[in-house]
Amino acid sequence: MLYEISEKAIQLENQGKKMIKFNLGDPDMPTPPEIIEAAYDAMKQGKTKYSSAAGEKVLREELASIHDVSVDNVVITTGSKWAVFSLMFLLLNKGENVVVPSPHWTSYDLAAKRVGAELRFLKGDLESNWKIDVEKLENLIDEKTRLLILNSPGNPTSKVIDEKTFSEIVQIAKSRGITVMSDEVYADISFVKAKSILDFGDDQILISGFSKIFAMTGWRIGYAIVEKELAQKMIKLNQITTTCVPAFIQYGALKGLETKKKIEDAVRDQFRLRADAATKVLSKAKMNFSRPDAPFYLFPKVDGLDSERFALDLLDSGVAIAPGTAFGDYREYFRIALTVNEEKIREGLETLCEALP
Amino acid sequence: MLYEISEKAIQLENQGKKMIKFNLGDPDMPTPPEIIEAAYDAMKQGKTKYSSAAGEKVLREELASIHDVSVDNVVITTGSKWAVFSLMFLLLNKGENVVVPSPHWTSYDLAAKRVGAELRFLKGDLESNWKIDVEKLENLIDEKTRLLILNSPGNPTSKVIDEKTFSEIVQIAKSRGITVMSDEVYADISFVKAKSILDFGDDQILISGFSKIFAMTGWRIGYAIVEKELAQKMIKLNQITTTCVPAFIQYGALKGLETKKKIEDAVRDQFRLRADAATKVLSKAKMNFSRPDAPFYLFPKVDGLDSERFALDLLDSGVAIAPGTAFGDYREYFRIALTVNEEKIREGLETLCEALP
Repeated sequence: MLYEISEKAIQLENQGKKMIKFNLGDPDMPTPPEIIEAAYDAMKQGKTKYSSAAGEKVLREELASIHDVSVDNVVITTGSKWAVFSLMFLLLNKGENVVVPSPHWTSYDLAAKRVGAELRFLKGDLESNWKIDVEKLENLIDEKTRLLILNSPGNPTSKVIDEKTFSEIVQIAKSRGITVMSDEVYADISFVKAKSILDFGDDQILISGFSKIFAMTGWRIGYAIVEKELAQKMIKLNQITTTCVPAFIQYGALKGLETKKKIEDAVRDQFRLRADAATKVLSKAKMNFSRPDAPFYLFPKVDGLDSERFALDLLDSGVAIAPGTAFGDYREYFRIALTVNEEKIREGLETLCEALP
Repeated sequence: MLYEISEKAIQLENQGKKMIKFNLGDPDMPTPPEIIEAAYDAMKQGKTKYSSAAGEKVLREELASIHDVSVDNVVITTGSKWAVFSLMFLLLNKGENVVVPSPHWTSYDLAAKRVGAELRFLKGDLESNWKIDVEKLENLIDEKTRLLILNSPGNPTSKVIDEKTFSEIVQIAKSRGITVMSDEVYADISFVKAKSILDFGDDQILISGFSKIFAMTGWRIGYAIVEKELAQKMIKLNQITTTCVPAFIQYGALKGLETKKKIEDAVRDQFRLRADAATKVLSKAKMNFSRPDAPFYLFPKVDGLDSERFALDLLDSGVAIAPGTAFGDYREYFRIALTVNEEKIREGLETLCEALP
């Protein structure tokens, strides 16, 4: 459905219609010019050959230093999505399952299914401010559970898991012999400080990337921090699949890390202004939603809404959103990605509120 | 073993040793500057966002036109290796098998094993000039055979499959209901005209890429031409794994296609000179080998040789080669990649011939 809406929005644009696109998690900002120049310099310096399936040593070293782990724990991946998929491919056997708090990023579900595993969802709700019910989460675990996925700040709710909850979940996972895969791609630009899985020991999986903080979505570069043995397995799988992330792209990302603080702060500030603008319009319309802890989503609820139908109809009004059904059993919800400027946010959300059935 | 030798060669280089590296299929030429400039321009124009999992439309259209197929048949992939892996992942079930003439590219074997399939090798030999014995090939096929892989020109022999043999193999595959996966990454720079799988109908699989012809190995871009339904499956798998090839990389490749003839001719000429230089040294040393039909490998045989031991020992003499065991049951053989200049080829091969036990 997400894909259908995205394609229809593009079709309408191609027909000359002005579209305000809240449907994709792709920041509208350009990749910072210093990153582009660094990648270009690397290309000209011949960084265009096969490179290591683990990633360029300098980039791994920099990430190891940032996360206070050994370089052997760092694997550079073709986007954080490839990290998710390849880890599921390596860790899950047919018939095993993965526990994940919902609403959740669509790709977890699709990837798990593709490798023959089952996803078990803990249904969260807006009424509790999307807080994870740890007891209910534990009840989903059985002897076939192999992974537990956390995503903080999360897509589509933009909520951060508080320290106590995070810690309790990690303890449960440890005591049940389950690995936590913590997807933290939005953490560096979070409005509130988000805990990392690495704060609770080094035997779990951290997944992150450069797409969201450096507006590098299309560059396809992410990374995983995992225990050494698993890193070796990921590297071997890279060797027979994606081979490597282009070295010049890695030098671009490295440049980003060098000016990380500056870029991050600017990106965070911009998304905070956008979040403020959006919440203002939605509050005025008495929409039911939880304030985001981080960029760049809002996930409002409208009682009785069929969000699939609404999302399709709304396209004709020049606004694209993602129906809640793309993120689990959330037909009355929809996701707004604040990846357009404030003016468009106000205009688009006003149109949306007027169009509500 | 290939990986071990590659790592040791790099270690020795880092220790200050001068190495002549015949071990990797990575051309020494830089990526043509017009390709680099086109990629840079695309980056600056904002082609840095998520793009289609199928590939950029303009690039798919150009490839469709080159191969005389519909754009719906073209899927851009994260290197031709990802095309191979993802097709095996999509088409093979556990317990099924793949038939492939050997010696063969290592990745076919590793990828098939990784998805739980078995590879069945037709052992070729130098004495028959690496000609495929079609009858023996057919005898390997059983009810569990799903794919038949061809690689013409081939790695590591650089031999082209003649039209009659190619046609016979395709007929057998058709009559037995098996899909042919034809890896043609070296075809455009072949010294002799190589037939394509598309010359025998459009219901099979063509895999190709830009790495070898445009010296773009590290850029990770390749493509598959497959029937429409399979293309849709590949695109869906891309969506949950690699997402897309960075759009700016695709614009680089597109620029390459625009000046294809010029680049191809220059690359082919250079490799022909290198092949001549190499065959001269090897002939003088009375080495047993078949003359290459294409860039960029030689696969000589030395009776009684343990090529793994020889390859390891040879590193101390400053020469890196790939032992034949990396390409199947070929312990007496080794692969020489002509990816260094003529002077180094002469020097390296003379050292090699002297070092032979």
